[in-house]
Amino acid sequence: MSQEFRVEKDTMGEVKVPAQALWGAQTQRSTENFRIGGDRFPREMIRALGVLKKCAALTNAELGLLDKKKAEFIIKAADEVIAGQLDQHFPLVVWQTGSGTQSNMNSNEVIANRAMTMQNLTLPNKEIHPNDDVNKGQSSNDTFPTAMHIAVAERVHNRLLPMLEKLYKALDAKAQEFKPIVKIGRTHLMDATPLTLGQEFSGYATQMKNSIQRIKNTLPHLHELALGGTAVGTGLNTHKDFAVKAAAAIAAETKIPFVTAPNKFEALASHDALVEVHGALKTIAVSLMKIANDIRLLGSGPRCGFAELNLPENEPGSSIMPGKVNPTQSEAMTMVCAQVLGNDVAVNVGGATGHFELNVFKPVIVFNCLNSIRLIADACESFTDHCVTGITANTQQIKKHLDNSLMLVTALNPHIGYDNAAKIAKTAHKNGTTLKEEAVNLGLMTAEKFDQVVRPETMIGPLG
Amino acid sequence: MSQEFRVEKDTMGEVKVPAQALWGAQTQRSTENFRIGGDRFPREMIRALGVLKKCAALTNAELGLLDKKKAEFIIKAADEVIAGQLDQHFPLVVWQTGSGTQSNMNSNEVIANRAMTMQNLTLPNKEIHPNDDVNKGQSSNDTFPTAMHIAVAERVHNRLLPMLEKLYKALDAKAQEFKPIVKIGRTHLMDATPLTLGQEFSGYATQMKNSIQRIKNTLPHLHELALGGTAVGTGLNTHKDFAVKAAAAIAAETKIPFVTAPNKFEALASHDALVEVHGALKTIAVSLMKIANDIRLLGSGPRCGFAELNLPENEPGSSIMPGKVNPTQSEAMTMVCAQVLGNDVAVNVGGATGHFELNVFKPVIVFNCLNSIRLIADACESFTDHCVTGITANTQQIKKHLDNSLMLVTALNPHIGYDNAAKIAKTAHKNGTTLKEEAVNLGLMTAEKFDQVVRPETMIGPLG
Amino acid sequence: MSQEFRVEKDTMGEVKVPAQALWGAQTQRSTENFRIGGDRFPREMIRALGVLKKCAALTNAELGLLDKKKAEFIIKAADEVIAGQLDQHFPLVVWQTGSGTQSNMNSNEVIANRAMTMQNLTLPNKEIHPNDDVNKGQSSNDTFPTAMHIAVAERVHNRLLPMLEKLYKALDAKAQEFKPIVKIGRTHLMDATPLTLGQEFSGYATQMKNSIQRIKNTLPHLHELALGGTAVGTGLNTHKDFAVKAAAAIAAETKIPFVTAPNKFEALASHDALVEVHGALKTIAVSLMKIANDIRLLGSGPRCGFAELNLPENEPGSSIMPGKVNPTQSEAMTMVCAQVLGNDVAVNVGGATGHFELNVFKPVIVFNCLNSIRLIADACESFTDHCVTGITANTQQIKKHLDNSLMLVTALNPHIGYDNAAKIAKTAHKNGTTLKEEAVNLGLMTAEKFDQVVRPETMIGPLG
Amino acid sequence: MSQEFRVEKDTMGEVKVPAQALWGAQTQRSTENFRIGGDRFPREMIRALGVLKKCAALTNAELGLLDKKKAEFIIKAADEVIAGQLDQHFPLVVWQTGSGTQSNMNSNEVIANRAMTMQNLTLPNKEIHPNDDVNKGQSSNDTFPTAMHIAVAERVHNRLLPMLEKLYKALDAKAQEFKPIVKIGRTHLMDATPLTLGQEFSGYATQMKNSIQRIKNTLPHLHELALGGTAVGTGLNTHKDFAVKAAAAIAAETKIPFVTAPNKFEALASHDALVEVHGALKTIAVSLMKIANDIRLLGSGPRCGFAELNLPENEPGSSIMPGKVNPTQSEAMTMVCAQVLGNDVAVNVGGATGHFELNVFKPVIVFNCLNSIRLIADACESFTDHCVTGITANTQQIKKHLDNSLMLVTALNPHIGYDNAAKIAKTAHKNGTTLKEEAVNLGLMTAEKFDQVVRPETMIGPLG
Repeated sequence: MSQEFRVEKDTMGEVKVPAQALWGAQTQRSTENFRIGGDRFPREMIRALGVLKKCAALTNAELGLLDKKKAEFIIKAADEVIAGQLDQHFPLVVWQTGSGTQSNMNSNEVIANRAMTMQNLTLPNKEIHPNDDVNKGQSSNDTFPTAMHIAVAERVHNRLLPMLEKLYKALDAKAQEFKPIVKIGRTHLMDATPLTLGQEFSGYATQMKNSIQRIKNTLPHLHELALGGTAVGTGLNTHKDFAVKAAAAIAAETKIPFVTAPNKFEALASHDALVEVHGALKTIAVSLMKIANDIRLLGSGPRCGFAELNLPENEPGSSIMPGKVNPTQSEAMTMVCAQVLGNDVAVNVGGATGHFELNVFKPVIVFNCLNSIRLIADACESFTDHCVTGITANTQQIKKHLDNSLMLVTALNPHIGYDNAAKIAKTAHKNGTTLKEEAVNLGLMTAEKFDQVVRPETMIGPLG
Repeated sequence: MSQEFRVEKDTMGEVKVPAQALWGAQTQRSTENFRIGGDRFPREMIRALGVLKKCAALTNAELGLLDKKKAEFIIKAADEVIAGQLDQHFPLVVWQTGSGTQSNMNSNEVIANRAMTMQNLTLPNKEIHPNDDVNKGQSSNDTFPTAMHIAVAERVHNRLLPMLEKLYKALDAKAQEFKPIVKIGRTHLMDATPLTLGQEFSGYATQMKNSIQRIKNTLPHLHELALGGTAVGTGLNTHKDFAVKAAAAIAAETKIPFVTAPNKFEALASHDALVEVHGALKTIAVSLMKIANDIRLLGSGPRCGFAELNLPENEPGSSIMPGKVNPTQSEAMTMVCAQVLGNDVAVNVGGATGHFELNVFKPVIVFNCLNSIRLIADACESFTDHCVTGITANTQQIKKHLDNSLMLVTALNPHIGYDNAAKIAKTAHKNGTTLKEEAVNLGLMTAEKFDQVVRPETMIGPLG
Repeated sequence: MSQEFRVEKDTMGEVKVPAQALWGAQTQRSTENFRIGGDRFPREMIRALGVLKKCAALTNAELGLLDKKKAEFIIKAADEVIAGQLDQHFPLVVWQTGSGTQSNMNSNEVIANRAMTMQNLTLPNKEIHPNDDVNKGQSSNDTFPTAMHIAVAERVHNRLLPMLEKLYKALDAKAQEFKPIVKIGRTHLMDATPLTLGQEFSGYATQMKNSIQRIKNTLPHLHELALGGTAVGTGLNTHKDFAVKAAAAIAAETKIPFVTAPNKFEALASHDALVEVHGALKTIAVSLMKIANDIRLLGSGPRCGFAELNLPENEPGSSIMPGKVNPTQSEAMTMVCAQVLGNDVAVNVGGATGHFELNVFKPVIVFNCLNSIRLIADACESFTDHCVTGITANTQQIKKHLDNSLMLVTALNPHIGYDNAAKIAKTAHKNGTTLKEEAVNLGLMTAEKFDQVVRPETMIGPLG
Repeated sequence: MSQEFRVEKDTMGEVKVPAQALWGAQTQRSTENFRIGGDRFPREMIRALGVLKKCAALTNAELGLLDKKKAEFIIKAADEVIAGQLDQHFPLVVWQTGSGTQSNMNSNEVIANRAMTMQNLTLPNKEIHPNDDVNKGQSSNDTFPTAMHIAVAERVHNRLLPMLEKLYKALDAKAQEFKPIVKIGRTHLMDATPLTLGQEFSGYATQMKNSIQRIKNTLPHLHELALGGTAVGTGLNTHKDFAVKAAAAIAAETKIPFVTAPNKFEALASHDALVEVHGALKTIAVSLMKIANDIRLLGSGPRCGFAELNLPENEPGSSIMPGKVNPTQSEAMTMVCAQVLGNDVAVNVGGATGHFELNVFKPVIVFNCLNSIRLIADACESFTDHCVTGITANTQQIKKHLDNSLMLVTALNPHIGYDNAAKIAKTAHKNGTTLKEEAVNLGLMTAEKFDQVVRPETMIGPLG
């Protein structure tokens, strides 16, 4: 921005604003009063405010409350906001007023000013007024939570769900591919009865399938929009049809089935809908942590670990140990999960600490929701592309483990009982021998019978 | 328990068990190896294990895998476990093996021994064997997570949902009762435009209504049972029809629509379903924290606070300040919410840290789920009975606030614009005068017009 | 308690109290108004209130503010509370008023009544008055936080520190014992350069040594007592010397260097000192989680895992897999750590949500602190006794791993550079050969030179 | 960066790197493999790596292990990294390998390449080798945690502590300024006995003073540096004097008393020191949440709230309610605190989930530590400048509250006993009268005596 200024005014008086900036007095005050942290107000929210302002202008014009020509230019300017062309005019940070008023005003100011410069009007100018026209029939208190829901829902629908689906499909494909490979199971990290590698991956795939359902379960409340509630939920100064019509316009613009919230008091004063969404996100993080951990453990080695999976070698793994390759995609994924579990607490604290007619932790709540969505979606994509799809089975090692395991003894339970079977396993463990040797030595079973009963490939499903 | 002992055996050898105890060797070992904390394994889980063992015996008998007479006595003994008659024979703590094997064995041992003492058989005795008979076709790895789902689902259906409903109805009744009372709204804790006290309470009621839906959304995964997966999810050593039939038996016994889990590997290795349930519980805690906080703030005073609500006076509030009454139900409720937010993290960490075919944070996960359910349900009941239903409005104070507020100025926006309206409010604030005085003084509106426009009772809804 | 009642009175009127109960009206009201959860107010706090009431009576008597004879009997009754003889007269739960007033009054009532029954006075009776005598110069608002600090400090000094020390010593002893055993290191779970098993355990021991220091760092603030602040921190109605003298009496009684808090307003309105203590507890939980996880991973197997450690076999590990032994002490420990990480959030939320002159999350804060202390201390003791001290090294497996590892190649860096060394490792990995073979094949080093340079026992420390 | 490329090589082969970029093959691979989230690796860490590489080169040269001329240019290049001149050559994100290897290699590559371009050598070139020269005697596994400690310690010393001090002083100045103002106290949000506004602020000041001490308590472990441990803590391939000398060089460079860590195994495998630091940060967040909440509650109104404080009016507060002013600095502060409480959980999960010789949650841990430090420091500065220093007392409202309060009755306890005093307060509350009227009416005290005893200005300290 240049060094030159123009003078803008708001109800508190005059403020110097950089000459090139489309923002106005209130945005400028916020840049001066809130020099906190490095987190810019997220792009997704700027876009959502653009969508909202466009649809509000459309609706107000339709209801005869806003001059058609004003509406036309407000809509054009809002379209530029939606497209990201005016992002440099949104300089505010997350750590501002807890209602997001300053960012709502930022959008009002930029859209009003852009709507005027499009008509070659000189700034400062209030012919199109940020409050009376762009914010017509609205309050930060209903627009900001509406934009929160638009932004989060757009990212869930357009980015998170496709990436969860992508990882699900990759894991499911591996479950199919690995169906024939019988391997030793592990419980408590200890050798247990066998299963197929495909079965193991089917568990991961199911976790991802459930993840998709979990986030979908939270959408009904997320699709409810606060718009029309204005300052405290009553709808003061807005038209009685505004709420329903504006929600329909937003649904049309975004192709997401938004509706007006049935109770606006709840929609302004709480953000339970987003706390619920993040509850699903943290559950997904819990699933991903398990999957990524298992995969790196199964890939551990190459010579002194479990070493049942070969993970793709994407980069040198050590600045000192030549030839080392590490499970770095699992590491990025589990770090992302740790962050999401942390973000969840930030969202909870913010959600729980509203007062009366307004929750004023709005920016921190939406910031964490958007951040978690992005991290999970990006990490799922990276994990799929750079890890899951390239995984192969180390069949040699898998066979070695299977042949050695003492837990195949479990197949003997129905034949000689738990106590006798335990005796065989414990003796073999003590002597470093095989189960078969000890079964025969202890006189509990013949070698022929043993061979007939203890066949890992028959131990991977129920009887009958 | 008496000082006398009998000698029980397991695969590791002999153990002295108190003569009166129905438990066996493995339970006894656990009491000696895990002297950690004061948290007994919860009653709800003991009951759930009883339900499970009964239904497993029924199903095994039906499938011809278990002797009918053995089954009969196992079922009788399990019925006593269900009824709580044998609780003193479940001495184990939460902080034991992470698979809950010791508590599963505790139930196997107690049921086997009780089934034998019912027949006047002398202990120690393995005629009915804890592993081969009571645990037939089962593993701790599928029984314990099944019992977790049974216990949590029973408490959700039979206790949590009714208590959420109770609080919802009490808040909704207040929303109806308080409909005629117009009061000042507050955003950012600051005076804002008016609403009715009924509208304010309708927001709380909506939060509770949504809470009920939130927990219901998590039930489909909760109703999936791991039983039939045995040791690692494959179903080894169980009958192919066992899983479906046993789940049906459990559904019949509990009147809850349990089904067999479609993927047993997921059902043993993860507890995503419970992490999801607790995600709903923490969201409910967030809602309750807001409601309880608002109510105590609105009741603050009696002379130097908001003082718009009179809360029931249940007990003296101070050991030093005579006559003091405090919002203690809100305090208990918000403390409960703090605990639930903490429990959520414990559940997340446990859920995220499973390995391979088994999550071994089972006891801590179910302990926190049951604890959070109980705390929320009890606190909702107490808060309803001892606070919400007794709340009355302090109409005198409410009227005083309403008459004084400067934010009625908002009604002027459509008439004189935001900037002029702001001028009036700011001048009245500075001078300690009324809006009307300053509207006239500043020449922005006549007194007649002002009276016509600024009527709080018309400011509680949209135009038209 | 019997069915019979006596009638007690407080400032709100009459209340029926079980005839045998030493408690009075306010305690009784609390039992009726707070039927929430199953968590009894902890024994440690009852004891601490006894200590406090005794020392307050001593001090008041010394200052001439309390009749000597009254003081004598109050002190005797308080001694019984300290000794645990009156625990059945403390029926209240954690989820009560957030100031703990009801538990403070419970102690006042029990001590007053017991002081009277000792003199054969009949109840109800206020000759010794719970407020005017036992609570003399006190308020719940200063006594309860004082008791919180006494209870937590006593458990830290008398139980937590000794158990941390015990585990530290056990790990340090293993670090000494395992000094000669060279093994492969692992980073990112992948084979890395060697170290000794003793060095590995020295890391764990250092974590515990630091844990002890961490909790000690928090003691100075914990030793500050609120007593003397009375209702809001001003000390109204108490003697100006009371605070200092009473703190000294408590220090003498407990042998812990308590002092009066330099600022009583902070001491009532915040519980930062306990939030800080729990910050140390959660850090300790983080350390213990790492140690317990490593130990179970190193013990994984017996045939298909890392299998470098043999863990004690304490109990049968499976109800279906005969002969299975699991790392159950690690499981109990990691579950405890998950709970402590959750408790930390409960403490944070409680600590952050105080208002004005009083934090009213006192019971939930102290409950979680005491619970975490107990869990960590008990788990450290159990983990030491039933796991650490019995660990042995599986030297055969350790040697096998060491001989096979490709990361010994790192020793070649200073001789042939990182890029050439990497070439050797990658080729050996690809071909399933040894480093030496490929070093020679690639013409990068002679076999003699290789043997001279690659000696694991010289790779466990710096050069020179 | 331009479209043109040069070809760089690492041990995995060739990679195209933008022609202008100073980074090499491994950095380039990371940009392609980790497209996750928007969080760039923080500037503070880039600087810290610069400090470390400079001091390592100095030390290696001094020990005769690195060619003097190479060292000279490495140091010059590192100085540019320290100064921030090469930040555009550090393109990596936080969500990469959990060891930070890629960022360590990024610094090695940039410094090596810059050291060569300074000498007009053309890239690609390995005359100065990123591994063999810049990383000499180092591993990512010791450099990265060293840089973590340097970065965090620098921000604690140079930014956090001064800003905590700044807020402390501002609160302390207010405590002095407000000393003469007697006001009503509030416990449980309810009217209580009086104190001075200065006393109330002294509580906040004490919280900040303690905050400073809390973070200082964590510095001893933070000052311990892992450097010299190389790959797994043994110090393989480094000189025996390197660790101590390099730590001394870093201390000299940063003017912070860094020392070499006494146990390198702990220093690589755990990040307990940073978990401990963040434990202090979360405690500080808890303190700040209380202070910021109190201040906005005391400023609530202007006409329908507590209204005892006037907060600075920094910006218009509403897009719909003209003239509204909100406590926005408290809102930004409490949002920051919510984030820090969330970050704490991310740090805990990361800290607890290390394995064997290396914790691989390094980037997420240091990212959250640096983020929390920045947020708290910035918010303290903003809160001080834009809120605390401008606070004034609304003495008129304060006096009105004080005159009306019923809790002045507490002063009567020593004269007429708690029960009689309660009777007066309850009657006055019921009748809407004054305490004095009812004291006289009830015959409990004469008007003269009442006036003598109930004097708020004498109720703000102990007796005698």
